Amino acid sequence: MRVRNRKGAAEHLESNAHVVVENPADFKGRWAERFGNDHPIHIEVGCGKGGFITGMAAQNPEINYIAIDMQLSVLSHALDKALEANLPNVQMMLVDGAALTEYFEDAEVSRVYLNFSDPWPKTRHEKRRLTYKSFLETYEQILPSEGEVHFKTDNRGLFEYSLASMSQYGMILEKVWLDLHADEEFAKVNVMTEYEAKFSSKGQVIYRLEAKFPKRG
Amino acid sequence: MRVRNRKGAAEHLESNAHVVVENPADFKGRWAERFGNDHPIHIEVGCGKGGFITGMAAQNPEINYIAIDMQLSVLSHALDKALEANLPNVQMMLVDGAALTEYFEDAEVSRVYLNFSDPWPKTRHEKRRLTYKSFLETYEQILPSEGEVHFKTDNRGLFEYSLASMSQYGMILEKVWLDLHADEEFAKVNVMTEYEAKFSSKGQVIYRLEAKFPKRG
Repeated sequence: MRVRNRKGAAEHLESNAHVVVENPADFKGRWAERFGNDHPIHIEVGCGKGGFITGMAAQNPEINYIAIDMQLSVLSHALDKALEANLPNVQMMLVDGAALTEYFEDAEVSRVYLNFSDPWPKTRHEKRRLTYKSFLETYEQILPSEGEVHFKTDNRGLFEYSLASMSQYGMILEKVWLDLHADEEFAKVNVMTEYEAKFSSKGQVIYRLEAKFPKRG
Repeated sequence: MRVRNRKGAAEHLESNAHVVVENPADFKGRWAERFGNDHPIHIEVGCGKGGFITGMAAQNPEINYIAIDMQLSVLSHALDKALEANLPNVQMMLVDGAALTEYFEDAEVSRVYLNFSDPWPKTRHEKRRLTYKSFLETYEQILPSEGEVHFKTDNRGLFEYSLASMSQYGMILEKVWLDLHADEEFAKVNVMTEYEAKFSSKGQVIYRLEAKFPKRG
């Protein structure tokens, strides 16, 4: 996600260290301590403006959410949402999704969400896509056996790529939606991102999948 | 595919036994004899009016094609197309796709095509969908190790179902198209079915996938 540089973003994050974890590597294997309970942890890699994670956290108080973004200005907007919602089960961290194993112990995370990730359409940027095999390896490591990734996007090319990339990695597609908003049952629980609300209102189709990693041998 | 009953369809097939194989089980393990060469055999399960298989056969003379449909009137229309094209590499058979192992030896077929298969949208009809696991088992048996299924449809529900069904069966998605006709490279070789030409001209999106079975252990 691209946003304008936000003045004072770094200070904003620093002054809200109860939400934005300053040294996330310190909590590797100890996230239950940080949250004060041992509820399952769901993370969103590339949280954008934070509407999804805040909405999910409000809907599911028995789950702990961690919003991850590597862009300072983006995360500072997400922080605004989290502060406004004032929920005990939301934490944030300003880190690179490629380095998740530095912050989470094996199987410490129960689910990974990817929402409207940057499509990186050029072939030479394939490795930057959040469903490229190196990222899948990272997710597999921090998830339990048969752990799940839930992914939605409006980008056709990225979704086509991701279906094949996940399948070739050995993941199993549990469910696929090729027009998410046509599913009236799912609409009842769907938490829309800011981007999703905007583009689906313009008639853009939203794709979604739930996939799991294979059973650990 | 639904077509009106065609008067004289049975006689039409019988009088063209050089194209429509009368006792296909007799050729199990011996299709190379029937074609007079040992070129790879590609089959289309549910051939409809035959535009696809005839077009493919014209485009690829070094491949033998067998069009399969269980509906007499449908196959008689496909036969018209084949007679008009008069190609040595097209054969047809009036049989049920569920019984393919009666007609083909293990690994005797090199590729399976499914085009605009009946979606059978009701859950209680799941077992009739040509991408239901029992059909996949059949295809796997008559294909070689890592054999491929190529599937296209305009039906969103069937395509969503098929992605998950194939993945859960253990198949690997090699490539997925969520708007086939937007792919200008593929358009150069794409042989459209009658149905595809009609519906895509109305703006209907066409989905396509290429998937392979896992390596035999």
